[in-house]
Amino acid sequence: MPKTDLDQRSINALRVLVMDGVQKANSGHPGMPMGMAGVAYTLWSRHLNHNPHNPQWPNRDRFILSAGHGSMLIYSLLYLTGYPLPMEQLQQFRQWESKTPGHPEYDPKIGVETTTGPLGQGFGNGVGMAIAAKHLAAQFNRPNYPLFNHYVYAIISDGDLMEGISHEAASLAGHLGLDNLIYFYDDNEISIEGSTDISFTEDVPARFVAYGWHVQEVDGHNMDAIELAIRAAKKEKDKPHLIVCHTHIAFGSPNLHDTEKAHGAPLGKEEVRLTKEAMKWPSLEPFFVPEDVVAHYRLAVPRGERAEAEWRELITAYEKDYSAEAQELQRILKGELPAGWEKAIPRFRTDGGGVATRNASGTVLNAIAEVLPELLGGSADLAPSNKTYMTGMGEFQKNTPEGRNFHFGVREHAMGAILNGMALYGGLRVFGGTFLVFSDYMRPSVRLAALMKLPVIYVWTHDSIYVGEDGPTHEPIEHAMALRTIPGLTIIRPADANETAAAWQFALEKKDGPVGLLLTRQNLPVLPEIADKAYEGISRGAYIISESPVDRVDLILIATGSEVADALEAQKILTQRHIGVRVVSMPSWEQFEKQPLFYQLSVFPGNVIKRLAIETGVTQGWWRYVGRHGAVMGIDRFGASAPYERLKQEFKFTVQDIVDRALKLMAE
Amino acid sequence: MPKTDLDQRSINALRVLVMDGVQKANSGHPGMPMGMAGVAYTLWSRHLNHNPHNPQWPNRDRFILSAGHGSMLIYSLLYLTGYPLPMEQLQQFRQWESKTPGHPEYDPKIGVETTTGPLGQGFGNGVGMAIAAKHLAAQFNRPNYPLFNHYVYAIISDGDLMEGISHEAASLAGHLGLDNLIYFYDDNEISIEGSTDISFTEDVPARFVAYGWHVQEVDGHNMDAIELAIRAAKKEKDKPHLIVCHTHIAFGSPNLHDTEKAHGAPLGKEEVRLTKEAMKWPSLEPFFVPEDVVAHYRLAVPRGERAEAEWRELITAYEKDYSAEAQELQRILKGELPAGWEKAIPRFRTDGGGVATRNASGTVLNAIAEVLPELLGGSADLAPSNKTYMTGMGEFQKNTPEGRNFHFGVREHAMGAILNGMALYGGLRVFGGTFLVFSDYMRPSVRLAALMKLPVIYVWTHDSIYVGEDGPTHEPIEHAMALRTIPGLTIIRPADANETAAAWQFALEKKDGPVGLLLTRQNLPVLPEIADKAYEGISRGAYIISESPVDRVDLILIATGSEVADALEAQKILTQRHIGVRVVSMPSWEQFEKQPLFYQLSVFPGNVIKRLAIETGVTQGWWRYVGRHGAVMGIDRFGASAPYERLKQEFKFTVQDIVDRALKLMAE
Repeated sequence: MPKTDLDQRSINALRVLVMDGVQKANSGHPGMPMGMAGVAYTLWSRHLNHNPHNPQWPNRDRFILSAGHGSMLIYSLLYLTGYPLPMEQLQQFRQWESKTPGHPEYDPKIGVETTTGPLGQGFGNGVGMAIAAKHLAAQFNRPNYPLFNHYVYAIISDGDLMEGISHEAASLAGHLGLDNLIYFYDDNEISIEGSTDISFTEDVPARFVAYGWHVQEVDGHNMDAIELAIRAAKKEKDKPHLIVCHTHIAFGSPNLHDTEKAHGAPLGKEEVRLTKEAMKWPSLEPFFVPEDVVAHYRLAVPRGERAEAEWRELITAYEKDYSAEAQELQRILKGELPAGWEKAIPRFRTDGGGVATRNASGTVLNAIAEVLPELLGGSADLAPSNKTYMTGMGEFQKNTPEGRNFHFGVREHAMGAILNGMALYGGLRVFGGTFLVFSDYMRPSVRLAALMKLPVIYVWTHDSIYVGEDGPTHEPIEHAMALRTIPGLTIIRPADANETAAAWQFALEKKDGPVGLLLTRQNLPVLPEIADKAYEGISRGAYIISESPVDRVDLILIATGSEVADALEAQKILTQRHIGVRVVSMPSWEQFEKQPLFYQLSVFPGNVIKRLAIETGVTQGWWRYVGRHGAVMGIDRFGASAPYERLKQEFKFTVQDIVDRALKLMAE
Repeated sequence: MPKTDLDQRSINALRVLVMDGVQKANSGHPGMPMGMAGVAYTLWSRHLNHNPHNPQWPNRDRFILSAGHGSMLIYSLLYLTGYPLPMEQLQQFRQWESKTPGHPEYDPKIGVETTTGPLGQGFGNGVGMAIAAKHLAAQFNRPNYPLFNHYVYAIISDGDLMEGISHEAASLAGHLGLDNLIYFYDDNEISIEGSTDISFTEDVPARFVAYGWHVQEVDGHNMDAIELAIRAAKKEKDKPHLIVCHTHIAFGSPNLHDTEKAHGAPLGKEEVRLTKEAMKWPSLEPFFVPEDVVAHYRLAVPRGERAEAEWRELITAYEKDYSAEAQELQRILKGELPAGWEKAIPRFRTDGGGVATRNASGTVLNAIAEVLPELLGGSADLAPSNKTYMTGMGEFQKNTPEGRNFHFGVREHAMGAILNGMALYGGLRVFGGTFLVFSDYMRPSVRLAALMKLPVIYVWTHDSIYVGEDGPTHEPIEHAMALRTIPGLTIIRPADANETAAAWQFALEKKDGPVGLLLTRQNLPVLPEIADKAYEGISRGAYIISESPVDRVDLILIATGSEVADALEAQKILTQRHIGVRVVSMPSWEQFEKQPLFYQLSVFPGNVIKRLAIETGVTQGWWRYVGRHGAVMGIDRFGASAPYERLKQEFKFTVQDIVDRALKLMAE
């Protein structure tokens, strides 16, 4: 029920490009886009406030295809509305180095706002973007200056809604009353295994009402209904919006309409032909779109340029009336840190007693929060343990969106996706905390942060068996190593308070990927060996903190985090045994791997083959550094519940254990 | 509002033991158990059908403390009702090698049905147990023989309900109409960061109604109300039951009642004293419980013995009337496979063309399903891709609980926890499938399967960049390595169809831990080098599939999965170059590590230092096997979207690439 013939043909143009793109690639997912073409067209032609010629205009509406498998839909929309994504790219769908990969990959220059495909992630990203928009509006909007007042739209699928992460994010979005969020749920009743009836019969609208959302249901093939629903959503304040769109998968296909066969495979050449014929498409030529249809879509360009121009005028006036705010906004949107910010980072005295690195982190965070207004974050209900609370910085809630502390609730996975959304939005630096062992709960989102190279910071505390009494369910064993496997994620396990401070500096300076800080629950000495070189040490990834006191190196002790201080103690004892021991703190493998070979060899000379790595976690990757003549003190089993000092003995990580193992290695 | 003074004192006894246990350990979570003591007492004294003298009686009710941090509650209940958990153990709470660790750890001999603590997992385990009970009832109950007719109870918390996994599991439980599930939700409105209002304001009852649950709300301190709610739940068929219990955290504590301070820390000696005085406890002696209270709780023993005796009588009669079923039931409850079952495993011909290992897996699964009636499983909406469907075995649905195929929906995390619950239940062998890249979504449950040593089988297909067009979001890079970090999890990446068949045999024979099968999307040759030794090869973890054709070994090529066939091809070329190459297939690191040293050295002799490992994943752990003089062909970056043959070239994994790298290594 489109309004005009041009509308109808514009909708069909999406279906045609999707069918043809998938057919040419001989791979892909045509069903969802064909079903949601009408919704997408209505949104993009009448509501989406965007400028295809400047995809990064800050106050644009965001559009997320959470159901990323329907990627040809967004590529078609981007091409048709005039983004720098030419037809040749649609024809290169799913080919090597094309701009049109199988699932949308974050590419701000062409209008792809986030990487989607792993279900539920886009849903969570949108919540993060909506939060970011609310926060920046609260911080920077002024009377008559609505600098940030746009919407975040997403198309979501059954799969998104089955995934737990969408529940977590929806619950939080409802709690926060994010009325700038408008999600279109493609309720096509088909999943890969068949009808959704086989496993998914919950009452989705009622569930979202329970979360505090404003919910509407429409015929997803009725433009008027969609239009009215979007308008109604914009009028209803204080709640996020779900528009349930009843659709038919592969709408328009005479034989595959409403079947799971249309979900994840090309329709087939014959069915493509039949579909085009059924819709009276003027040409069977692949990728053919009538000129008037393209021209109609391209009206998005002048419309978008006008909208952006108006906003730029607003900004120009704002710069006069609120010059300090304008400068601050300009700075944060560029992702620049304020000059000299790092002077705020405290140094920890080496004579002041032990400090848990989680506490050092909390101290550093509170100090830098003062000079970095763009720093936001929180914890998945563990702030008192993670030490992630920024005192005096307010709490982000429905009525206080200027607050900078988040209560994510016990929702690690949504936290991960929301942090990604906030980082994608621009202008903010974000962090999130939980226990290291629960990094597993958020791992899919961490992976996407790494894939998108987002500067998200994870505060993962309680980083070893020294959690103690809480036992094996709460003691990370494999987590440091497992996180190190994720390409592009930098893991830092600081040895003391000053390495922790340096790690924060490093993490904030890094713009091209996420950083995970692995922090202790228990106190650690603040080491004089580290105080003056912590920042360089963190940047280098591994560095000598105590050279062999004799003029040869017989043995290298390599340690991370809480094991570093013990390695230094062991060095003293081994020195008395006339062994020349070098101690290396190795907070970050990823940084060490980036160093030039000559630096690497200066830390681990090829001729020193006796090397002992010490880390309270699985040994798996350490062999790279210790070699076949070295040894690893690690833990290749689960932890246990007991006071942590007892665990240190039982798991053989005392100074004496290190000495014994070193002596044994020297004798081998 | 307990009914009698004895009831009141029995409830307070739980509070006293909890307070004292936490106080003595100087660590733990007293608040929840004190608030839920009345609910727990009502359930355990009037409804829970269990035999403390035989905690493994098959038709017992199951009780799960999903809010595992309140572990002193379950320990107190087990002690008081007469399980083999003496008072000395309560006094050893959270100490080394005690039976009372910080969070409950699966220990069937003392009545701990599952390991809990990581939130949401117990919720999912219960759903798995309820499914198992329904299935076994459908398979074995006969008119007048209700062998399986018990309930699964759990205490769940705000934290459980915030976690996405509980959403997934609740949605599926509602869909399946699991009316044998009765969950008590401790709605105490307090979380670690403060009031739950700060992040959790959804309408939980409405949400569960939307999932298709039967929901009641009661005052959790009113025994009559709890009693009535349990009775009402038992009457309401076809829906799982949620009883929302409004409680006060740390009920009875004059000063900490209703505060987050009581969540995760001892009350303090003084507050313990004040609490005992306020409840007029007869002694301030720690762990004191009046004799009549203990005796009252211990009535559970004769009651339980009577209940079990009646069930045993039923079984005895059943053995006469249904002897075949009785024998089958006995066998599966013992966890024994039927004699000769492995003869059903197909062998794949080496001259029949290529077979994707996921297809080989599907063929094997269908063959063994015929001889293993206890084998159940499914996929998280990817059965057609994972090849996990067992043809002719029916589908487990509300009205067909005898079915053996599951539709888990796009709910990987709940699938993991449900599989754990089914495995914990006993009598069933279970598997679950998804793409390997989405193992991340279920990782917390996989970890718990490993921690509990549960024989769960994961069918993780699409195991490398050779996923191809779907791109980096769907291509596992780090997953094999990251999964290998989990202690006790056995990862098998078979090289061809016959290694896949052997892997299934191995996995089913293994009873003491989970096994993950990493399977290809694309076809692989069926290798003559493997056909006769696949089973031994899988058991050994690594084995020589092609010896150097000359009488020396210059180089060892070590490969897994899809890289093995290419290594064999490379060997041929290198032989022509007069290099003596041995090819080792290494499907399982974990199995190889369990072999005696002499076997390990027979595969990787110390004097052959030129070793090249080949695997389409991160290189991290391979250095252990190749040493400093070896090399690793791996992928330490994310994948890309393109046809897989193209990716093979771009990522440099062709046979020629292997040859080139080997020649370079030989020249180094």
